Amino acid sequence: MTKKLEGAGLRGQSAGQTSLSTVEQEGSLRYLGYSIEDLAKNASFEEVAYLLLLGQLPNSSQLHDFENELFELRTMPTSLVSVLESIPSSAHPMEVIRTIISYMGVIEPEESFEDQLQIAKRLLGVTTSAIVYWYKFSHKNKKIDQETGEKSLAAHFLKLLRQEEIPALHQKTLDVSLTLYAEHEFNASTFTGRVCASTLSDLHSCLTAAVGSLRGPLHGGANEEAMVMLQEVQSVESVKNYVDQKLENKEKIMGFGHAVYSVRDPRSDIIKDFSQKLSQDHADKLLHDIAEEMETYMWELKKLFPNTDFFHAPAYHYIGIPTKLFTPLFAIARIVGWSAHAFEQRGNNRIIRPSADYIGPEDREWIDIKSR
Amino acid sequence: MTKKLEGAGLRGQSAGQTSLSTVEQEGSLRYLGYSIEDLAKNASFEEVAYLLLLGQLPNSSQLHDFENELFELRTMPTSLVSVLESIPSSAHPMEVIRTIISYMGVIEPEESFEDQLQIAKRLLGVTTSAIVYWYKFSHKNKKIDQETGEKSLAAHFLKLLRQEEIPALHQKTLDVSLTLYAEHEFNASTFTGRVCASTLSDLHSCLTAAVGSLRGPLHGGANEEAMVMLQEVQSVESVKNYVDQKLENKEKIMGFGHAVYSVRDPRSDIIKDFSQKLSQDHADKLLHDIAEEMETYMWELKKLFPNTDFFHAPAYHYIGIPTKLFTPLFAIARIVGWSAHAFEQRGNNRIIRPSADYIGPEDREWIDIKSR
Ligand SMILES: CC(C)(COP(=O)(O)OP(=O)(O)OC[C@H]1O[C@@H](n2cnc3c(N)ncnc32)[C@H](O)[C@@H]1OP(=O)(O)O)[C@@H](O)C(=O)NCCC(=O)NCCS
Ligand SMILES: CC(C)(COP(=O)(O)OP(=O)(O)OC[C@H]1O[C@@H](n2cnc3c(N)ncnc32)[C@H](O)[C@@H]1OP(=O)(O)O)[C@@H](O)C(=O)NCCC(=O)NCCS
Repeated sequence: MTKKLEGAGLRGQSAGQTSLSTVEQEGSLRYLGYSIEDLAKNASFEEVAYLLLLGQLPNSSQLHDFENELFELRTMPTSLVSVLESIPSSAHPMEVIRTIISYMGVIEPEESFEDQLQIAKRLLGVTTSAIVYWYKFSHKNKKIDQETGEKSLAAHFLKLLRQEEIPALHQKTLDVSLTLYAEHEFNASTFTGRVCASTLSDLHSCLTAAVGSLRGPLHGGANEEAMVMLQEVQSVESVKNYVDQKLENKEKIMGFGHAVYSVRDPRSDIIKDFSQKLSQDHADKLLHDIAEEMETYMWELKKLFPNTDFFHAPAYHYIGIPTKLFTPLFAIARIVGWSAHAFEQRGNNRIIRPSADYIGPEDREWIDIKSR
Repeated sequence: MTKKLEGAGLRGQSAGQTSLSTVEQEGSLRYLGYSIEDLAKNASFEEVAYLLLLGQLPNSSQLHDFENELFELRTMPTSLVSVLESIPSSAHPMEVIRTIISYMGVIEPEESFEDQLQIAKRLLGVTTSAIVYWYKFSHKNKKIDQETGEKSLAAHFLKLLRQEEIPALHQKTLDVSLTLYAEHEFNASTFTGRVCASTLSDLHSCLTAAVGSLRGPLHGGANEEAMVMLQEVQSVESVKNYVDQKLENKEKIMGFGHAVYSVRDPRSDIIKDFSQKLSQDHADKLLHDIAEEMETYMWELKKLFPNTDFFHAPAYHYIGIPTKLFTPLFAIARIVGWSAHAFEQRGNNRIIRPSADYIGPEDREWIDIKSR
């Protein structure tokens, strides 16, 4: 089979309309017209979630109500807790996130599309508590209290995980990271969710489908792979050698390159700044330095630039997040974008059903099993 | 927002290559070159599954081994049984199927793509046993024995469900139905699975995603909706009135029309024959007669023809399958096609990442929350 690159992967082909975001090749990203730089600098993740799910920025009282609702909707149903306790520590956390959302669908189904916003909020809250609960139970043998008293999702996640007061810079890092991960037009997982939405299926199905796609190493899985790689390199000096070796083996350098951006991913510099600040007084400062060197060398060598996932690896490491939970965090943030896209698809729907070029055997006569 | 029909839903646009099947507008369907008529007439579902998953028809000894393997792989892990017992009878069975597959991924993950065939076989077996187990437990308060001694999936399913000897015509009906449902090119659920596969995610993710899409009423959900509709009509004479009323209310007649076929769905006549035969000595003979009348009238009125789902409704009803389990059966059969497509995508992959036409607000200046 020959690799068909022209038009393969639907690259550059329009698969529909959206008013949620614009991704421009030269390196610009906007959610409903607001630049990612402005959003990261000024808005909380909850504010961004409101913007994407409801179509406009909230005023103070709207935001206040929205935060309270998210807060109330966090508590897990008890039968979900039992399911989580049955999942071994060896499970891939993205399989766990996928199962959490799927299971929520069996016990709290979307009865009608009028419930869609409520379900999105519910899943945002429950997945956050549930993934940490499972992680602590399976890895540390500890049943954690689900309540932290923290309003923001970022602070809640970190406090559940670390069971201590969280420094402001750590909270801010995760909060901004969630904003960067919240939405990205017709990327593979969002498109998966939209194809599902186009059959008029329920929201749990759309999100479960999207999580499955995000898991792949060519997509969200890249932040974990980048971390593994950065930890394999022992020093700044050995970066070039390491990269050369990988490329010689025809391996990809995870966290580099992008299907749409051609010179830079605007999200990378934002998270890189946090990584840099956090590295200052961290015992693992080297990790950031190695990452910077890799960025420089990859550009020199291949004109490839880091995508959003790359500097997320050191940044997450510095705020105490285990590598296994990197992609689940991406998934939690993207629940916002996926849901907004499902709502949009439902609002102006036609079932997404493309054609295929047939390259198989010609028409064949039947042959009885005895004659084969 | 205006409905963009030109090219909407990627209709008629190629999204990749396949050698698994051809769907032709005028009403022909072939799996790897063999016509659906030949397959339905001559092959068992297991033979068809072998063809799709392994790329060629088996000889007798290959088929024998394959059937034995499927037989061995049916038994559920005990932790899955506990999860099933926690799911209420009110759950939508497609949410249950989705959760079964997702949960199997957490406890028996696909460690490498070399396991893909094994996983597909495992899921084919486990979902069959699991969905009936859940149904009997939640609806009839009965823990059924998972073993039936039956080799064929069709006979196994019916025996688990009905707990009695199954007449040959009933087995044959379900066996042929599974063949008809096994594969259908780039339909919405298969395409969902392929987008997921294109991120190089695991097979459980691809199948979970596909199940979610199949659930939608515009896709697999149509067989259940057709049944509900047929049971609402009281007599052959009232069909026209019923249809007129629906169309007047701008409702769709479920089980009619197709995204690719324009005059007939070749699968419809095959299952219709079974429905007709089964209706002969069934107390609900009327159901088939009503369906036939609806077929005639829809063609007269709108030049719309029944798709595969329509006559599946009476046929399944006649062999004792509760309406709730119609779409799950479609899903079980389609595990074969979905898996084969995931294997194919993996074999010649580029991440599926289309573009979108932006129709949202222009670039906007940031406004502080206090000024909103
Ligand atoms: C993101 C990605 C999937 C985009 O894929 P795409 O649009 O299909 O682009 P291609 O894979 O065709 O890349 C074009 C060329 O650059 C090379 N390339 C792209 N990303 C590369 C990487 N990270 N490392 C090494 N080479 C890379 C490809 O091998 C290809 O070279 P070729 O033309 O000699 O075959 C791809 O860059 C990638 O796999 N990156 C690593 C995974 C990752 O970080 N994913 C997260 C994305 S947010
Ligand atoms: C299968 C289906 C989704 C194909 O969709 P599509 O390719 O997007 O076709 P459209 O929905 O644009 O249909 C074209 C026209 O026929 C009409 N039509 C199609 N199927 C119809 C149905 N089952 N009942 C009434 N009208 C129907 C549409 O309303 C549309 O009319 P319009 O041009 O006046 O708006 C569609 O026929 C349908 O919804 N059928 C019912 C659900 C079903 O049986 N699905 C199982 C498919 S195997």
